[in-house]
Amino acid sequence: MQGRFITFEGGEGTGKSTQIKLLSDYLTAKGIKNIQSKDPGGTEIGQELRKILVTGDKDKIDAATEALLYYADRRINLVDKVWPAMEKGLWVLNDRFADSTVAYQYYGYNKKLSLPTLKSLYAIAVGDFKPDLTIILDIDPQIGLARSMAKASHMAVKETRHESRGLEFHQNLRQGFLQIAAEEPERCVVLNADKSIEELHQDIIAVVNERFGII
Amino acid sequence: MQGRFITFEGGEGTGKSTQIKLLSDYLTAKGIKNIQSKDPGGTEIGQELRKILVTGDKDKIDAATEALLYYADRRINLVDKVWPAMEKGLWVLNDRFADSTVAYQYYGYNKKLSLPTLKSLYAIAVGDFKPDLTIILDIDPQIGLARSMAKASHMAVKETRHESRGLEFHQNLRQGFLQIAAEEPERCVVLNADKSIEELHQDIIAVVNERFGII
Repeated sequence: MQGRFITFEGGEGTGKSTQIKLLSDYLTAKGIKNIQSKDPGGTEIGQELRKILVTGDKDKIDAATEALLYYADRRINLVDKVWPAMEKGLWVLNDRFADSTVAYQYYGYNKKLSLPTLKSLYAIAVGDFKPDLTIILDIDPQIGLARSMAKASHMAVKETRHESRGLEFHQNLRQGFLQIAAEEPERCVVLNADKSIEELHQDIIAVVNERFGII
Repeated sequence: MQGRFITFEGGEGTGKSTQIKLLSDYLTAKGIKNIQSKDPGGTEIGQELRKILVTGDKDKIDAATEALLYYADRRINLVDKVWPAMEKGLWVLNDRFADSTVAYQYYGYNKKLSLPTLKSLYAIAVGDFKPDLTIILDIDPQIGLARSMAKASHMAVKETRHESRGLEFHQNLRQGFLQIAAEEPERCVVLNADKSIEELHQDIIAVVNERFGII
């Protein structure tokens, strides 16, 4: 049996990591073996790249450098973790993937990088592989950022480099994700993330069941 | 006065870093202010990327990941160090640049990545900027590798990830550099590096004097 690759996307504080854990438990209960990973930081080298990318001053590296580093991290995650797992028939639930780079480095930055640039990076790092399903968690950035900063206040290393960008950036980001979903409706599903954890989990289960025929 | 960007290229153990120091002293004596930098690792973040790129097992990351990381490092070096210095009129002597990525990740790996791929990474990270002069130090890889491994034996952290590739890789690499020089003779000068440090330094001075009209 062939594995599946499901990605979770959305702005800061949409609850992606919590929902991935819950979906993983659900799939396991259904007898579907799965692993969790993330961009950036799904691998050991990726953890080092993650530190560069999500901590520190927002202007310490620019959009082009970010895109190169995110794609380097993404490729390591694919080569070392995602593809080998899928070959063994495992499902992989990935916290962010290439849509985040389009949303952050293209829409968020007001199109400082071009879409053809991001497409050529995708081709170099990912080839013609793509997610079987992308779940985009959508929320008003003001609510999401408040959640995310509250979570960060308990972290030893503050992963708040992107949170520190202004509200306009995060509004562009949200519109970016919605635009991506509109362009690829067969791959992407947008869910309202302004709900309780359990309600959102049930919405996700409904999408996954329907998409993959789980009963 | 506009700064200049001079890059040094070549395989392992060709003496690039030694020659850069000597040329820097020479230029300073001529009243030409200059700084030294390198790919990878010319900046603080670059040092973290350098650790990933030049230490550890040769197969820990593949050619595409390497190319993405080298170009990320390169862009940080340009944005944070090279371009600001050049704007102030400084000359920058850079230990390796984009030719190394073509030589290592294209020729060294037997064309596993395509040239258009590397060109699109160049366009993303570097734009239409290029070196004013590239000095390629050429040596028989067997001599160069022996030199480089002798040097590494005194290092606390062994930067020998590329040295550990087979001799065929390093022969491809050498041919790659010669091919690059043949294609851009107005930018590149190949010098025989199988000489004493002082002899090679004099050869480099002669090239630099002639190219930039230093008397």
